[in-house]
Amino acid sequence: MVAGSAPYGRGLLGAAALLVAGIVAIPAATPTGTGQGARAAVSAADSTATARNVILLIGDGMGDSEITLARNYTVGAGGRLHMDRFPMTGTYTTYSVDTDGEPNYVTDSAASATAWATGHKTLNDRISKTPDTDRAVPTILELAQHGGLATGSVTTAELTDATPAAIAAHVTDRSCQGPADMALCPADARAEGGPGSIAEQTVAHQIDVLLGGGKRRFDQTITEGPERGATVLHRARQRGYQVVTNARGLDAARPGQPVLGLFAPEAVPVEWTGRPAAAGGTAPQRCVTANPERSGRTPSLEAQTRKAIGLLEVGARQKGQGKGFFLQVEGASIDKQNHDADPCGQIGETAAFDRAVKTAREYATQHPDTLVITTADHGHSSQIVPMAARPAGLSATLVTDEGALMKVSYATHAGEEGQEHSGVQVRIAAEGPQAHRVLGATDQTELFTTLRTALDLH
Amino acid sequence: MVAGSAPYGRGLLGAAALLVAGIVAIPAATPTGTGQGARAAVSAADSTATARNVILLIGDGMGDSEITLARNYTVGAGGRLHMDRFPMTGTYTTYSVDTDGEPNYVTDSAASATAWATGHKTLNDRISKTPDTDRAVPTILELAQHGGLATGSVTTAELTDATPAAIAAHVTDRSCQGPADMALCPADARAEGGPGSIAEQTVAHQIDVLLGGGKRRFDQTITEGPERGATVLHRARQRGYQVVTNARGLDAARPGQPVLGLFAPEAVPVEWTGRPAAAGGTAPQRCVTANPERSGRTPSLEAQTRKAIGLLEVGARQKGQGKGFFLQVEGASIDKQNHDADPCGQIGETAAFDRAVKTAREYATQHPDTLVITTADHGHSSQIVPMAARPAGLSATLVTDEGALMKVSYATHAGEEGQEHSGVQVRIAAEGPQAHRVLGATDQTELFTTLRTALDLH
Repeated sequence: MVAGSAPYGRGLLGAAALLVAGIVAIPAATPTGTGQGARAAVSAADSTATARNVILLIGDGMGDSEITLARNYTVGAGGRLHMDRFPMTGTYTTYSVDTDGEPNYVTDSAASATAWATGHKTLNDRISKTPDTDRAVPTILELAQHGGLATGSVTTAELTDATPAAIAAHVTDRSCQGPADMALCPADARAEGGPGSIAEQTVAHQIDVLLGGGKRRFDQTITEGPERGATVLHRARQRGYQVVTNARGLDAARPGQPVLGLFAPEAVPVEWTGRPAAAGGTAPQRCVTANPERSGRTPSLEAQTRKAIGLLEVGARQKGQGKGFFLQVEGASIDKQNHDADPCGQIGETAAFDRAVKTAREYATQHPDTLVITTADHGHSSQIVPMAARPAGLSATLVTDEGALMKVSYATHAGEEGQEHSGVQVRIAAEGPQAHRVLGATDQTELFTTLRTALDLH
Repeated sequence: MVAGSAPYGRGLLGAAALLVAGIVAIPAATPTGTGQGARAAVSAADSTATARNVILLIGDGMGDSEITLARNYTVGAGGRLHMDRFPMTGTYTTYSVDTDGEPNYVTDSAASATAWATGHKTLNDRISKTPDTDRAVPTILELAQHGGLATGSVTTAELTDATPAAIAAHVTDRSCQGPADMALCPADARAEGGPGSIAEQTVAHQIDVLLGGGKRRFDQTITEGPERGATVLHRARQRGYQVVTNARGLDAARPGQPVLGLFAPEAVPVEWTGRPAAAGGTAPQRCVTANPERSGRTPSLEAQTRKAIGLLEVGARQKGQGKGFFLQVEGASIDKQNHDADPCGQIGETAAFDRAVKTAREYATQHPDTLVITTADHGHSSQIVPMAARPAGLSATLVTDEGALMKVSYATHAGEEGQEHSGVQVRIAAEGPQAHRVLGATDQTELFTTLRTALDLH
């Protein structure tokens, strides 16, 4: 029951095409808010159109509940986030599978990213390999490189974490992030003739732009195989990567050689802080829109996204193949703060992700041959509950920017290990060529087909 | 901050119109599954088109989590429900307001139904009256009647419960369901010259088709005002209503006079049963697709919907005004079983609701001038969690029809009063004239505008 990628979005491509074939009538009223973006998004909505560029933004664990929380807190219940303003919207299913192909109703980020990156469902914890035969399957980034596009990956997690890993590596288990972390991936080990850890594979891909955290993985020494005897980072420099570790270094990076930005030893520290949810709740609190653990020299996700787009646009031209770029941007700590039942951390990361969405949409406004998609990899724990509720697990009360009280509940797990993912379907939204493919109820594997179709990759 | 109804769907009408104005290309592939429905839905997608008929189906408490639960259990994670097959999809916000206009992030069904039925945000518990001045505001059903349309309302709840009440009555508090229930609605009392209880107002509206539960409210005696001295049901018969109480009676009902079907004293008993969620979880269980408390003579929601459509279609013709009908169908006990942390009850009601959606979509296939919309009034408690999770509240494990295990958590309230609504944004899906208005992120109040625009009501 390993699902492949469906050739059409369960009939919705046809539906949208029929809409396009409908009667034409443009209302006199100018669209508000979404105006430019909407126009850009739909100007090439022809179902046979292709995109020069794709920017895919993944909010890790950013289900509809997490979106609503961030909206309520930052712009008010009646306000709208940037991610709310896409013209084409739908929902998609995120389940993973077991070894025997049976569904696992709650995916992790590894199986989820494998689904959209390759069109194949797989086991939780597996990175772009099949669930049964543990065989590598091509990723959208690999197809894009093969097709002559410039490629990039930006994340607030370690660059070797599940989501960025799934486009740039193939390993049996997501834990195999650096050369010293290979315990669960014997088949991938250099000693066995395998491609090595996620960090090694990522660097070997010669991806034009790699920005995120996880420097500790790249500082590990390769001990097996032809590249043994140096750190992954050393090998990256030998391959021509410009290695940067802060905002100033990133600013100084120039097209022509690939860029590897590593802005933290582990995940990039979050933007906001506050009291985590607690048994019996918290006193009403305002979030602190700063984090003492985050250096002022750490570039924001928005700044990283803007720089990545700029580098990729020039990089694509320099390749001289008449092609554009594929960029993946992950807001990873929406998930991580949800695991920690920290509503302020979670909302701050969602707001930071939304500013990256804004940057991507601004680019698409100027470059309507760009497909921009934002979605999540899975739902999560946080729920907005009535003020009178007494949740069974942890909860917190926030005072939103519009001055109202909002109670947030986290109760998917009672132990010390933190909160759990949920199996809820999640939102997907898009603008640009092939954007109508996100309409309706689709599956995560169909996003792979949308990306491949939009970029005309084979 | 009482939000009125926006004239356009936050720019998305414009976006969809631009899509319509795009390049035309119908792919050779025929849409699967959604074929007929999709074609019908979009054939009149012109943004200036009007609908002859509207069928609005409200899954009470049917957030994305509840939809995913029902899909996983009944058709499998990779299967698709009827409600999944609408071509136009979006999300909408559901918050209510306080007396001072500040947002209340978790709505109840009364404020929610008031929002889509009137275009006005109001207080929780209030029925189609303003939050501050407690003034009645016109409902979409009233506008439809005024415009010469036939009208109908079908629910699995009491016909006096919040959702059906909001289109057919105006009271200060939702508890004022029958003449003996007026404690919290002094301004609406007959003795004060008011219109009386929800039951009295509903009957006075001469709605063509009223089907649901709550007979006990209609059996109450009117003790004040010009109609005092008889039960609401007696007054209904005097007004010409055909009163039916079971499937055979419903079958026998004929157009020409309004129909009042009351199939249970309180809410209509649910279709499925099973062990409710419990602290520490339940053993894996299959749901029982029957309920000993539900008589074989109780018509299904699907059967009620089919009969209502048939009556309304003829009724509209008999009115001789060249107009169609407006029908509201509520799957009410998705919410009620969620409050009770009963996953089998909840899923069975969602499946029953989905069959009503199927009936509505089949009608629209044959009558493409019909706008069909399905959505929820608010999200709810149930979450799909990993099998390894130990939820902090109540949980249950189900064995789905595809043979996999699914763990469901309910933890929004720890007390005996039952589970709570959530404030999450919810899905809205549509086909037919003006269906594109549901795209993007809209607010519940905008659904009122969509209905009014589609039916060209003023």
